[in-house]
Amino acid sequence: MTDAQDCTRIKMIDAAIKLFNAQGYSGTSVRDICHEANVNPALISYYFGSKKGLLESLLVQFFEEYLHILEETLAEQGEHCARQLLLTCLKRALIYQQENHHLSRFVHREITIDTMLVRELMSTYLMKEKHIFYHVLKRGMDQHEFKKQPIDFIIIQLRGMLTMPFLHPQYIREVHHLVSHEQYFINHYLQYLTQWVDSYLCIRTKVKVPTFVRATTV
Amino acid sequence: MTDAQDCTRIKMIDAAIKLFNAQGYSGTSVRDICHEANVNPALISYYFGSKKGLLESLLVQFFEEYLHILEETLAEQGEHCARQLLLTCLKRALIYQQENHHLSRFVHREITIDTMLVRELMSTYLMKEKHIFYHVLKRGMDQHEFKKQPIDFIIIQLRGMLTMPFLHPQYIREVHHLVSHEQYFINHYLQYLTQWVDSYLCIRTKVKVPTFVRATTV
Repeated sequence: MTDAQDCTRIKMIDAAIKLFNAQGYSGTSVRDICHEANVNPALISYYFGSKKGLLESLLVQFFEEYLHILEETLAEQGEHCARQLLLTCLKRALIYQQENHHLSRFVHREITIDTMLVRELMSTYLMKEKHIFYHVLKRGMDQHEFKKQPIDFIIIQLRGMLTMPFLHPQYIREVHHLVSHEQYFINHYLQYLTQWVDSYLCIRTKVKVPTFVRATTV
Repeated sequence: MTDAQDCTRIKMIDAAIKLFNAQGYSGTSVRDICHEANVNPALISYYFGSKKGLLESLLVQFFEEYLHILEETLAEQGEHCARQLLLTCLKRALIYQQENHHLSRFVHREITIDTMLVRELMSTYLMKEKHIFYHVLKRGMDQHEFKKQPIDFIIIQLRGMLTMPFLHPQYIREVHHLVSHEQYFINHYLQYLTQWVDSYLCIRTKVKVPTFVRATTV
């Protein structure tokens, strides 16, 4: 693809994300997208086949990159403890969504609709995501880092915590007066997640006997 | 309203919830709804003014009842400890959504779209919901039942945990092979939430010395 073609494609994708977010997928026409992107309507079929093809392309692109980040983290941090591995996954997943917050919002909303396409995405990408989290949590439990708890429920909770700020930026803004894709929010939220991992998942390390007590005993 | 009118209204609401869930709000026409409900299209304007009026009626009805449940719990359990109060709120919020799981899914999805109507719902109902949870959490912290933690983040997490099974039933079914509106799921999920409240929010009560130890000491 030439630079000009790539640029046209990106312009159409940006216009689609903007309009899908504002009007919903069904409420947006091919004509709207091309008008917003200032391109010829014929180009939709050239680049994506149809509006549905464009939707599929957006969803697949989001999940491909997201899963790639998680898989890479798992591979490169193979020997780290489960706690560290999980925190790195959470951090990178947050940053990825922050960098693509308009797309994230649309994707998280769209996959709540029951269509054939969404089922396929579930059975490929979200199954993989589950297996990655399952692997990390199981390892933590086997190595006595994490308390034994029902893993499916932890993954459901984790997924809720990871997607909430990006699916619901408006709730967070209007009700809590916080802007969920800004850096200060991400930093504080990550601290909160770390604290959740430490106090909810991790087995507390045994209380150390303070040095002065041991000293007097000796 | 006569019984026959009430019945027609309910038939239209049920048809709308079904179609909005399957095709999205924008993707559903007044004609579709009346065809599904087997009523004359003119009745939409008689009962709801327009498709938008029907949408507003669905959203308001959901939140009115939901807030009523939370406010009633707060009033009737006024003297209970914060932990008990919070658990009763969570239990009733889950049961309410379970009983209205099709409507819940649609409402939770719809309020992620940025419209004037959604902003109004946020500033009335979701602000009230926040104040109720804030009140319970603050009381728990003041009475040294709960650990001091950033309340806004706890409420964001709580809301995520409460809505996740109903916004995302398909994810929970396809990926975790659980049916989120069935009774066994609600029971297990409530156990999980209880455990979350106890181990994440509550200050641990001091470990009691087992009776036999004290016995031998005596």
